[in-house]
Amino acid sequence: MRQNNRQMNEIRPVIFERDFTEHALGSVLVSCGGTKVLCTASIENRVPHFMRDSGEGWLTAEYSLLPSSTHTRCKREVANGKPSGRTSEIQRLIGRSLRSIVDLSKLGERTIFIDTDVLQADGGTRTTAITGAMLALSDAIHKLMSDGTLVENPIKELLAAVSVGVIDTTPCLDLSYEEDSRAEVDMNVVMTETGRFVEIQGTAELQPFSREELDQLLDLASSGVSSLITQIKELELAYSK
Amino acid sequence: MRQNNRQMNEIRPVIFERDFTEHALGSVLVSCGGTKVLCTASIENRVPHFMRDSGEGWLTAEYSLLPSSTHTRCKREVANGKPSGRTSEIQRLIGRSLRSIVDLSKLGERTIFIDTDVLQADGGTRTTAITGAMLALSDAIHKLMSDGTLVENPIKELLAAVSVGVIDTTPCLDLSYEEDSRAEVDMNVVMTETGRFVEIQGTAELQPFSREELDQLLDLASSGVSSLITQIKELELAYSK
Amino acid sequence: MRQNNRQMNEIRPVIFERDFTEHALGSVLVSCGGTKVLCTASIENRVPHFMRDSGEGWLTAEYSLLPSSTHTRCKREVANGKPSGRTSEIQRLIGRSLRSIVDLSKLGERTIFIDTDVLQADGGTRTTAITGAMLALSDAIHKLMSDGTLVENPIKELLAAVSVGVIDTTPCLDLSYEEDSRAEVDMNVVMTETGRFVEIQGTAELQPFSREELDQLLDLASSGVSSLITQIKELELAYSK
Amino acid sequence: MRQNNRQMNEIRPVIFERDFTEHALGSVLVSCGGTKVLCTASIENRVPHFMRDSGEGWLTAEYSLLPSSTHTRCKREVANGKPSGRTSEIQRLIGRSLRSIVDLSKLGERTIFIDTDVLQADGGTRTTAITGAMLALSDAIHKLMSDGTLVENPIKELLAAVSVGVIDTTPCLDLSYEEDSRAEVDMNVVMTETGRFVEIQGTAELQPFSREELDQLLDLASSGVSSLITQIKELELAYSK
Amino acid sequence: MRQNNRQMNEIRPVIFERDFTEHALGSVLVSCGGTKVLCTASIENRVPHFMRDSGEGWLTAEYSLLPSSTHTRCKREVANGKPSGRTSEIQRLIGRSLRSIVDLSKLGERTIFIDTDVLQADGGTRTTAITGAMLALSDAIHKLMSDGTLVENPIKELLAAVSVGVIDTTPCLDLSYEEDSRAEVDMNVVMTETGRFVEIQGTAELQPFSREELDQLLDLASSGVSSLITQIKELELAYSK
Amino acid sequence: MRQNNRQMNEIRPVIFERDFTEHALGSVLVSCGGTKVLCTASIENRVPHFMRDSGEGWLTAEYSLLPSSTHTRCKREVANGKPSGRTSEIQRLIGRSLRSIVDLSKLGERTIFIDTDVLQADGGTRTTAITGAMLALSDAIHKLMSDGTLVENPIKELLAAVSVGVIDTTPCLDLSYEEDSRAEVDMNVVMTETGRFVEIQGTAELQPFSREELDQLLDLASSGVSSLITQIKELELAYSK
Repeated sequence: MRQNNRQMNEIRPVIFERDFTEHALGSVLVSCGGTKVLCTASIENRVPHFMRDSGEGWLTAEYSLLPSSTHTRCKREVANGKPSGRTSEIQRLIGRSLRSIVDLSKLGERTIFIDTDVLQADGGTRTTAITGAMLALSDAIHKLMSDGTLVENPIKELLAAVSVGVIDTTPCLDLSYEEDSRAEVDMNVVMTETGRFVEIQGTAELQPFSREELDQLLDLASSGVSSLITQIKELELAYSK
Repeated sequence: MRQNNRQMNEIRPVIFERDFTEHALGSVLVSCGGTKVLCTASIENRVPHFMRDSGEGWLTAEYSLLPSSTHTRCKREVANGKPSGRTSEIQRLIGRSLRSIVDLSKLGERTIFIDTDVLQADGGTRTTAITGAMLALSDAIHKLMSDGTLVENPIKELLAAVSVGVIDTTPCLDLSYEEDSRAEVDMNVVMTETGRFVEIQGTAELQPFSREELDQLLDLASSGVSSLITQIKELELAYSK
Repeated sequence: MRQNNRQMNEIRPVIFERDFTEHALGSVLVSCGGTKVLCTASIENRVPHFMRDSGEGWLTAEYSLLPSSTHTRCKREVANGKPSGRTSEIQRLIGRSLRSIVDLSKLGERTIFIDTDVLQADGGTRTTAITGAMLALSDAIHKLMSDGTLVENPIKELLAAVSVGVIDTTPCLDLSYEEDSRAEVDMNVVMTETGRFVEIQGTAELQPFSREELDQLLDLASSGVSSLITQIKELELAYSK
Repeated sequence: MRQNNRQMNEIRPVIFERDFTEHALGSVLVSCGGTKVLCTASIENRVPHFMRDSGEGWLTAEYSLLPSSTHTRCKREVANGKPSGRTSEIQRLIGRSLRSIVDLSKLGERTIFIDTDVLQADGGTRTTAITGAMLALSDAIHKLMSDGTLVENPIKELLAAVSVGVIDTTPCLDLSYEEDSRAEVDMNVVMTETGRFVEIQGTAELQPFSREELDQLLDLASSGVSSLITQIKELELAYSK
Repeated sequence: MRQNNRQMNEIRPVIFERDFTEHALGSVLVSCGGTKVLCTASIENRVPHFMRDSGEGWLTAEYSLLPSSTHTRCKREVANGKPSGRTSEIQRLIGRSLRSIVDLSKLGERTIFIDTDVLQADGGTRTTAITGAMLALSDAIHKLMSDGTLVENPIKELLAAVSVGVIDTTPCLDLSYEEDSRAEVDMNVVMTETGRFVEIQGTAELQPFSREELDQLLDLASSGVSSLITQIKELELAYSK
Repeated sequence: MRQNNRQMNEIRPVIFERDFTEHALGSVLVSCGGTKVLCTASIENRVPHFMRDSGEGWLTAEYSLLPSSTHTRCKREVANGKPSGRTSEIQRLIGRSLRSIVDLSKLGERTIFIDTDVLQADGGTRTTAITGAMLALSDAIHKLMSDGTLVENPIKELLAAVSVGVIDTTPCLDLSYEEDSRAEVDMNVVMTETGRFVEIQGTAELQPFSREELDQLLDLASSGVSSLITQIKELELAYSK
């Protein structure tokens, strides 16, 4: 039995606070248990150099831990003069995932900036960031469609992300910080509403894992993502009314 | 008459949400009108190199605008490889102000890190950060005293900060972003509960200002700080009960 | 049919040139088709700060593309003042993978530096780097055991890595640069000689992929890694005679 | 009584050596007691990005301490990869002050670069830099008017700057390094020839200060600035003859 | 007598492996004894900012030590955020030397990038890099002439480089790492096929040197360069057949 | 005939202003024609990491062009985040030259910092910096000997530096900026009072140069250095009286 009577196949409570701040087109404070991430989607009427004159848009993502977000205060990265390897890896993951479900040709020559700033970290910050950014992106797109900037919705389907892992030889869904730090295997899975994979990143932290364990982890991830997407779709419906 | 029927000598509504995040000792989400700043106080049992073996503690502060906090998204400073001139100037102001009311010799060889992260910017972010940090610091000190880490309160007196400025030749208290961008004079004032000055930073943006205007601005600042300190003291009382 | 009459389940010719340079303990120029990576293993009698006095060793890896290695010359990263996101992501992958099969407690307080410098790039540089580094590491360890520095072999089992991907809806093993740039799905798999996974990193470049496609890709990867490990074991035998 | 029989309301001897170097349009070596600053004004026929096509000019300032200028040699900032917080704060102050008395629309699309390099530091380097830069700027403008580049003088009025502070409870004018390091309050004041304020930056180093002390400090600053501006005006007259 | 029965006026065996990699226009792995440098020449159809619209081309060079190339592993410079002083000095030397024998006006508005990456270092890396780069450049130019990009050969004459030095008061040609580290005088000489000097860089490491010693060193350098240029000319002939 | 009726073998007037600033142990403003460099020598009671516990001292040098020193204002290097290649090359030259005539074992574990800041540039800044630094160093050593910090003089012999070059096929001594920019050959020579070489750095800017030209240039350099050393010795004598 896990902390707070959680089952191994149970996700922590996920809450989305929309329009948490007012300047970005989409702004969602998402919390998954003790993990809280402010996810925003902003838009600019230009594209990066390598996309110019392509007629297509671009989407890029940034991620940051606030110094006070971690159990022990972490150093602000600006002091190091560059994002850490971990940060840039996560930024690339978030951007790549969301680009996979956006039809960039329907954006026009615009760039969507996804910002994910972790206010409180308790495991699963990168997957929670992706899930929250999905809703912030969806909200931003709805505004662009309402005001006539876009005519067609460039979002091809929704996605969400969860972490899964093996703890004490047991596959578990949605690891907290304490669980993550003693997991034998750690995996992040990004899936779409049609049940297909966008990203699988599995790492043997202590012990290589078998094909059988992999299959169990993917089953758990699939059910977790499924419930998150249901939650996002309900919010979208509420909003469009 | 100002936006929302505000008088020239009226401050915007100020709200303090305490314990907004859980890992830092003190964590306050302060909002002053549309400006929202997450202020935290963390502690470490070491001091910077230049303070070692002095028997005294240290307090340092950091400040950052989240990219999505501004009317138009601002670039994350980590991408430039260094804090901007503006950021480092504000960080120095916050640290210097709070150090002036802390008796560092009562901290022992510990460092207090004040982090002020602006979630939403609508003018007065540096003064709001100082005011919010005052409460976060006070909360952190109370916890250190409850658990016996500190025996004496190192806070000598409370302080708070407000912006004042001259708009269309009229001195005004607590400028919003829109007001600030067309102010002729812009001044930030940090004062203590005994009515003395810790910092005065006045800048003629468009037009040098006279001694008389200065006196009017300082009167406004004084009344604004006074009401903020009253609010902080009430929250402190509520907490200690 | 692929370029050079290659089957979809066929790996390109892999050649290991050992002792390619003479100063590092292990030095292997590995080529996989047109991809050539110089992989070396060096040792130092100290560990990073966070491992001091742990009695254990550490292994870290670095990766770099020579400017002339790519089809179009790429910029030297030193000119940017920091490794790119892609580079730091690959460095982390290589280090993490090799650490998973090394018993760090058997190294003593020493650090192994794996350097992987791509002399010529034609797809699969990160997986080729891992495979080449496996042999360089093994060679370095053998030297440390021969000269009595180590008494027990810290390598728990061998590993190797391959890329797999979906091209024109067909799962393929070991993508060349040209194939990689039009693949719908791109996956890097690191596996051990006992057939278990160390890392799985799968990305939908154009199109999310189904569970069935995933299974086919993992089967291909498994057979590719298997043949690479056989090749490494033969070289190890040759060496130890 | 202060060092060298100086009264509390007395400024140290101020000497301006004009045309100290020959390549910049204006070049002044100003000394105020033991503080010596080389102040130059150069011009370029372009403006920064954010001013393009505005028809207006720009003025920007840089400040640096030579390593050998301080009592104990200070590190060259290029070695840190960025200007320190203190340096960028001073640069911003100098630029902002001088811009306040220049009518940028009369400059045309040109940029004036003010460089202030401290050759010897003995307190008041930033205020001495502003005062010296005022004369260098004035000299540069005169040359641009003589050669017909400018038709109207863009300088609206002159300004100068002094430091004031409270030492042993006594308000004093123009602090030396030794006085500054034990001052309870430290204030820099930039004023114009019409007696109005451009900048007031007051900091309680050890002790918050009262409204009464503030008034005394501003009176001292006012008299100091007044005598500096008289000195500059005499030099201007001498020059134009 | 030197190591391997080498005479004081004898150069180590020099081997050029052409077309060592396939993406750059010219690619030469040059070895001089234990020193191995991969030298490539790539071309781009643009010139740096300061050459635009001049109708002329440019040539620039970069140099890097692979971390594993040195007797003791050296740190990768990207980790420091900038090339070291030594690296930038060598890069400037290589570029300047090669530009002196190229008629940039015959290149058109193109840039040649010379990359010299040291795979194994045993003294004389900068001179070996220049000599190898000469052949890589020559090969690249031949390809550009064969495919009609260039009509005239922009190479005015060939050059090569050697190190010379004084060891135990004896002038010697082509120092190995071990010799270099105990040399009293260290000199790098770049000369053309007509026997003229392009660069002379002589440094008294331990002891200033006399005019007579200088003359002896230049005689040695002259004979060394002469034999290298003969070797390059033979390779060029072989290639053009 | 050269500008100001100067002969080809004539050096520009050289003036040394000693004790130009007061905080460094040695401080010399040297001018050579229109080139003015502030050279200082400071001392610290510690050595760099690689010299610790060696019982020996160290000497290091830094060089910088003030932005206003050049004909057209040059950018402050701190803005680029690193010294340029040219700057680091010059710094290394100055440090290496002065170390060659200092017996570091007589310094004790101390570091001498040579700072050379160019206030006005008109050709020959690096050689003028070396010559001025020689006197600043000598002055600093004399102070350390007077106050008993050092017992023996660590300076083995004096040195000085000049530039020479070929202009319109004529070898010339001490090039001005205008001459330097059209010189065919440019050479910097550092020599000692016993007429031996410490550094020779000759570069063919436009045209390789012959052995005969080299000999003529070295003769000129020799006579120039000789007269500079005579001047320094006279100043030393004056000082010690």
